[in-house]
Amino acid sequence: MGMEQSALDPAVVDIDNADRLSDLNADYDHLQGKLDRSGVSVEAVRRRLSGFELAIPTWGVGTGGTRFARFPQPGEPRHIFDKIEDCGVIRKLSVVTPRVSPHFPWDCVEDYAALREYAAAFGLGFDAVNSNTFQNQPDQVESYKFGSLSHTSPAVRAQAIAHNMDCIGYGKALGSRALTVWVGDGSNFPGQTDFMRSFDRYLDSMKAIYDGLPDDWRVFIEHKMFEPAFYSTVIQDWGSNILAAQTLGDKAKCLVDLGHHAPNTNIEMIVARLHHFGKLGGFHFNDSKYGDDDLDSGSIDPFRLFLVFNELVEAEGREGSAFSAAYMMDQSHNVTDPIESLMNSAEAIVGAYARALLVDRDALHHHQQENDVLMAHNCLKTAFETDVRPLVAMMRYEAGGAIDPIAAYRRSGYRAAVAARRPATGQSGSGIV
Amino acid sequence: MGMEQSALDPAVVDIDNADRLSDLNADYDHLQGKLDRSGVSVEAVRRRLSGFELAIPTWGVGTGGTRFARFPQPGEPRHIFDKIEDCGVIRKLSVVTPRVSPHFPWDCVEDYAALREYAAAFGLGFDAVNSNTFQNQPDQVESYKFGSLSHTSPAVRAQAIAHNMDCIGYGKALGSRALTVWVGDGSNFPGQTDFMRSFDRYLDSMKAIYDGLPDDWRVFIEHKMFEPAFYSTVIQDWGSNILAAQTLGDKAKCLVDLGHHAPNTNIEMIVARLHHFGKLGGFHFNDSKYGDDDLDSGSIDPFRLFLVFNELVEAEGREGSAFSAAYMMDQSHNVTDPIESLMNSAEAIVGAYARALLVDRDALHHHQQENDVLMAHNCLKTAFETDVRPLVAMMRYEAGGAIDPIAAYRRSGYRAAVAARRPATGQSGSGIV
Amino acid sequence: MGMEQSALDPAVVDIDNADRLSDLNADYDHLQGKLDRSGVSVEAVRRRLSGFELAIPTWGVGTGGTRFARFPQPGEPRHIFDKIEDCGVIRKLSVVTPRVSPHFPWDCVEDYAALREYAAAFGLGFDAVNSNTFQNQPDQVESYKFGSLSHTSPAVRAQAIAHNMDCIGYGKALGSRALTVWVGDGSNFPGQTDFMRSFDRYLDSMKAIYDGLPDDWRVFIEHKMFEPAFYSTVIQDWGSNILAAQTLGDKAKCLVDLGHHAPNTNIEMIVARLHHFGKLGGFHFNDSKYGDDDLDSGSIDPFRLFLVFNELVEAEGREGSAFSAAYMMDQSHNVTDPIESLMNSAEAIVGAYARALLVDRDALHHHQQENDVLMAHNCLKTAFETDVRPLVAMMRYEAGGAIDPIAAYRRSGYRAAVAARRPATGQSGSGIV
Amino acid sequence: MGMEQSALDPAVVDIDNADRLSDLNADYDHLQGKLDRSGVSVEAVRRRLSGFELAIPTWGVGTGGTRFARFPQPGEPRHIFDKIEDCGVIRKLSVVTPRVSPHFPWDCVEDYAALREYAAAFGLGFDAVNSNTFQNQPDQVESYKFGSLSHTSPAVRAQAIAHNMDCIGYGKALGSRALTVWVGDGSNFPGQTDFMRSFDRYLDSMKAIYDGLPDDWRVFIEHKMFEPAFYSTVIQDWGSNILAAQTLGDKAKCLVDLGHHAPNTNIEMIVARLHHFGKLGGFHFNDSKYGDDDLDSGSIDPFRLFLVFNELVEAEGREGSAFSAAYMMDQSHNVTDPIESLMNSAEAIVGAYARALLVDRDALHHHQQENDVLMAHNCLKTAFETDVRPLVAMMRYEAGGAIDPIAAYRRSGYRAAVAARRPATGQSGSGIV
Repeated sequence: MGMEQSALDPAVVDIDNADRLSDLNADYDHLQGKLDRSGVSVEAVRRRLSGFELAIPTWGVGTGGTRFARFPQPGEPRHIFDKIEDCGVIRKLSVVTPRVSPHFPWDCVEDYAALREYAAAFGLGFDAVNSNTFQNQPDQVESYKFGSLSHTSPAVRAQAIAHNMDCIGYGKALGSRALTVWVGDGSNFPGQTDFMRSFDRYLDSMKAIYDGLPDDWRVFIEHKMFEPAFYSTVIQDWGSNILAAQTLGDKAKCLVDLGHHAPNTNIEMIVARLHHFGKLGGFHFNDSKYGDDDLDSGSIDPFRLFLVFNELVEAEGREGSAFSAAYMMDQSHNVTDPIESLMNSAEAIVGAYARALLVDRDALHHHQQENDVLMAHNCLKTAFETDVRPLVAMMRYEAGGAIDPIAAYRRSGYRAAVAARRPATGQSGSGIV
Repeated sequence: MGMEQSALDPAVVDIDNADRLSDLNADYDHLQGKLDRSGVSVEAVRRRLSGFELAIPTWGVGTGGTRFARFPQPGEPRHIFDKIEDCGVIRKLSVVTPRVSPHFPWDCVEDYAALREYAAAFGLGFDAVNSNTFQNQPDQVESYKFGSLSHTSPAVRAQAIAHNMDCIGYGKALGSRALTVWVGDGSNFPGQTDFMRSFDRYLDSMKAIYDGLPDDWRVFIEHKMFEPAFYSTVIQDWGSNILAAQTLGDKAKCLVDLGHHAPNTNIEMIVARLHHFGKLGGFHFNDSKYGDDDLDSGSIDPFRLFLVFNELVEAEGREGSAFSAAYMMDQSHNVTDPIESLMNSAEAIVGAYARALLVDRDALHHHQQENDVLMAHNCLKTAFETDVRPLVAMMRYEAGGAIDPIAAYRRSGYRAAVAARRPATGQSGSGIV
Repeated sequence: MGMEQSALDPAVVDIDNADRLSDLNADYDHLQGKLDRSGVSVEAVRRRLSGFELAIPTWGVGTGGTRFARFPQPGEPRHIFDKIEDCGVIRKLSVVTPRVSPHFPWDCVEDYAALREYAAAFGLGFDAVNSNTFQNQPDQVESYKFGSLSHTSPAVRAQAIAHNMDCIGYGKALGSRALTVWVGDGSNFPGQTDFMRSFDRYLDSMKAIYDGLPDDWRVFIEHKMFEPAFYSTVIQDWGSNILAAQTLGDKAKCLVDLGHHAPNTNIEMIVARLHHFGKLGGFHFNDSKYGDDDLDSGSIDPFRLFLVFNELVEAEGREGSAFSAAYMMDQSHNVTDPIESLMNSAEAIVGAYARALLVDRDALHHHQQENDVLMAHNCLKTAFETDVRPLVAMMRYEAGGAIDPIAAYRRSGYRAAVAARRPATGQSGSGIV
Repeated sequence: MGMEQSALDPAVVDIDNADRLSDLNADYDHLQGKLDRSGVSVEAVRRRLSGFELAIPTWGVGTGGTRFARFPQPGEPRHIFDKIEDCGVIRKLSVVTPRVSPHFPWDCVEDYAALREYAAAFGLGFDAVNSNTFQNQPDQVESYKFGSLSHTSPAVRAQAIAHNMDCIGYGKALGSRALTVWVGDGSNFPGQTDFMRSFDRYLDSMKAIYDGLPDDWRVFIEHKMFEPAFYSTVIQDWGSNILAAQTLGDKAKCLVDLGHHAPNTNIEMIVARLHHFGKLGGFHFNDSKYGDDDLDSGSIDPFRLFLVFNELVEAEGREGSAFSAAYMMDQSHNVTDPIESLMNSAEAIVGAYARALLVDRDALHHHQQENDVLMAHNCLKTAFETDVRPLVAMMRYEAGGAIDPIAAYRRSGYRAAVAARRPATGQSGSGIV
């Protein structure tokens, strides 16, 4: 179909790669030699690395904002088809992002089968669907001002449940296998809500949604400490999250967003605990310094990102092929080109995974057992300090992607091309703000 | 002028007060007796309390929101005239709020003299004017996406300076005596800005504005840890704030917003330090649990609010009548009627001041000197635990206000009345979101 | 028995009370009248209040310290018998503290029956016993340097389990009914411990202890974010706590120490969640501004303390007499006389409970249901701002205690008396530092 | 002198280096080639790197602890001579640590000239001297329980001032050129201290000390948010720090300890601000996750450490050879061999500096100027992700140190050797706990 032709000329990738291949080969060879010396099989690492998949949220390709302002850039995507086109660029250049995660009603269309086909032409499938009961929509009967799934009014809860059911329906049509539920329900004042009863109402609503899940689906519950509610949140932390997931049943899993925790929280430990109790569903990757900043993954604390992947590799080591977790980037790109930020973040995430795969786990476990604290720690440091960029770039190159995605993207002139044919609306296609 | 007739019927206040006066008298008499016993002159406290003045930000009477959503209520103010009308209700019922603090360009009008007269008819004058260089306006040449007063481009800085000059002009016409400068300038990524050069540019821009201040004006600099910038902010804390104020000169003072600090920060100590170095300009009152939550004053941590006022009373004690600080509420009312929240907050703030005035300072200083830690602390606790509501209500009543502002407001039917004549626009008059 | 004669002369209490009774009566009468007006039965409140019991930790009467220094005061208790004597003073004056919570091996004696009798002579029984596997003792075979119940070595774990069994034995002899387990196990470096395996080892050890509990005992698990371990802690938060308690069984409950959470954490919500899932065991009361500061209860954030009790009263309202939670003060008194701090804190805690009992719960629940946010919040504020000191003092007075415990204590000269007969050792009887 | 013979056999270093040299050469050559490609002169980087000097605190070679416990290891240093011997090992193996920073009275000796000579035999000089007014010493007249330099009592302040004068004297004898003043002064209760008066007293005391400084000395003021005081600290943050330093004069500079800030604080920005106003004195390096955890440098957030050095390199770029800052490690080694931790940390610190030197500053400044946010950020990421270990190891090797300091140290059997001749005392030579 003509429409599915991306504004990205694939020849640019080849041209840009050609300029970089010789250096890449040299760096790769040296890395391979170095790892060989320490007994690490680069091939084994590459095999596992090549299985890594990261979803792009459709809203992520629009410019984000804050409650104070939003500053759009040229060529903002106007609708789900533009978003798919942008995600297709990332898929082509960064390789590791084969699926998009849609958000409803922002991404509602008439014909879901056509949308699925359209995406497939860009090499994209559909990941978890996201429901939205934290905003009012123009045609909506009940208001979510005071909550949705935990609202005191049965009518509001019923509306929110029905919307989630709709999302499952859209997802089935799109080939998705999971529903992510994040609600803004909470309170701004001590006394505003009854913590016990509102949690009961939330659980009741979730049970209704859970009962509507297809057999092979999962539902991901996402906790968040605060925002948009600023005193309490119904699923405020992983504790409430796992208790809710246990209450619902096996198909309910917990989703960890790196920016949704209290200051100083040891997130990698939460990952281990959720895995321990069989409830680790997946991640929303981003980075943060202060709150839910939704900054680019690895831009603030890349070692923390590595430590999270260290736990994931531990979990893989225990469960083997049975282990599965859903990975998505969930960032707000306020001052960068979202496509560039997503590619840069994908690189940071895959790099963190690569480093975690390089950890000498036998040595680590040995030192842990012997309480040789410094050497156990240095097992992690040694892997973290290894420059894995040649490894990741080579994997991308061999899969047909770009050795340097940002450079190839800039060379392609994609942004200017879409700016020319996407009129500015002043509105974000992202739905936020 | 007919327009200036508020929808609030003043007779309602009398009726409501009549129902409450006898209880108030009883409670007041008991409080007076109790304070007499401990050697506190209620009259002296009332005298100081009656001099307390608190500004209302014009944007505060509109419903606030978050980056996720905004849920307006009926009767939203559409423009500065509606906002003045709403502020007039608060002035009438709560008494202690004789001035409004306007925000430009949100509150721009054709005729400032007429606006001043209009406000005066509601018993309102004008407090510090606020400039806005954190949003782009429709007709704006340069964009503030990457900063304003600290932007790398001289043209952007010039535009931002010129806007502040305009604000001073509006303020002169309105009878204001101060300019508050809060900028969103900062960065979202390590490396995005050069900390040293951007601060230099900020200082240069501020010098230009400072030079344009009338002789009897002050400029208030407001620091904020984060948001809308999520990695660094040009005036991130009181340290940068006071250094900037020192660099500018005597007319530059520091403004403390209670929600703009790092977690766990001892804010009352910052108040003492700013006063110590002659740079305490004033406050933006609100409360917060997580970040710049802009919750209602005293709703989360009323003791902290009291401790702030304890330092202010200490400062008054040192400087006497020379002491002056500007007080304003700066809250985001997302789930309440803003008028109710502002009246409730005014009560909390005046109450905190009243409690601070009740502290037996001679005893406190004596115990501090002797390191009788427990008794020094209990001087504060004794004052804090005193139920000062009768004192505050009596002061309000005697000044023509409401004994119970919320009750009188609800009885008046004001919200329904304005809802009937202010068509919903879906937009906030507040300018935010 | 001569030894059990306290240095506190009970006549002093009567003399001091006599000076205060008339004012107390006046204040009490006014409070009663005021509450009557709002439909609150003071008698019902007093009845519930009089059932309130708060344990004193034996180590709390010694001067605390930090890793930098400890500054003892005259008359430090030298052993459990001195501590009991000090606790007896608090029991006499503050009334609400009928039990002490011992810590082993610090409080080990030859004859537990004699100790129990000795305490009874001071009106004191024994609360939960506390084990100590975070310090090495002189005669100890295995070291706890790298953990105790979660240590990689079976021998260390066996030693730690055996110590807990011993504690149960001591507790049985003393009439205790619960064991509190707090461990310092954790890590200081990423990579030091295997989160999954160490949690498994912890659970295995706890199962062994759990199996040794008498039928009518409970075991309290205490979580803590950090310190003495500074990167991870085996029971780092309420999430790990409740999962451990669920794994163990019905007799395992969660203990909440107010200072053991991440910055900004909504602790009252955790209380509600633990209650929701049947796992709320009790509290360690203190206050904190930065970390586990162990400051005096209610000295930093008295409203938070009230909000915690608000949840406890909600829980009582749901469960009625079936509700039970263990309350203890757990503070470090570095700069005050510990006896004074404990009496002051008991007052703050009982006061918070009294305020929570004053909340008009029918109105609260109604406003919550209707999303009348401001009025729901004001239900709490109205109760919190009520000066309950006359109510609490009257309750104390009628039970034979002091109207003003601090004043009576100072008047008694107790500290000087014990200082004269307890030689300074430079060591804390508290066991810490 | 025979005594100065270290238990470390230098031959071990040669043997261990011989095993590693060939790999090092290969890795170094590849790094050099890679950097050449991107236009970085490795020689220029090495030249600057080789000028880097890092002090070791004498107390750092003893095992640290917490208020709960301390778990010493074999061979604990018993006194300053043992500490010097241990520091000599680090100096030999890690090279970059040519000076020790003594703490008084812990390191008091009879003959300072002899101590200086003794240290010189290990290749060690003396860095800033540290005073101690946060602990009481056995023979001390006045107590620091309620403060030292800011105490309400003139006698206590005089004693604390005199002690600092003594420290200057010791330092002169040892060849030191700076005094570091960290005090524990503060409060645990709201109301305990008068913020204004206590700061005045602190400044007065510091003025007296400042006046006693030799002409070529500097005094470093260290701020800390909390601990050992848990409600307020007299120099709580960099704001109070710089105001104090400005008040004192040119010889007073601010010291930044990475663990002494509020959660989420952007420390690198503070570095830039202190430099901007000419008050950046130096650093106490460590890492932290929760508070003043005193963990090993770079073990928790290595990117933050890099960002700090990025600002230091910026400052060097502005001031050139005029720039000078004092660097010291200040860590508490609770679960590792302190010698190993210090060598590991030195590696992390030098590595962070090396990475910062690799940043393409022209490109960075260009992207900053153009608001090419992503590329500016990637300038930092590119440098950070470079594996600089070969560069640092080569520099060490060429200076006569160890290619792998930990490995060489373990091979040497030093710990066992000193354990055999240093009897365990149960006391820490570190002075803490």
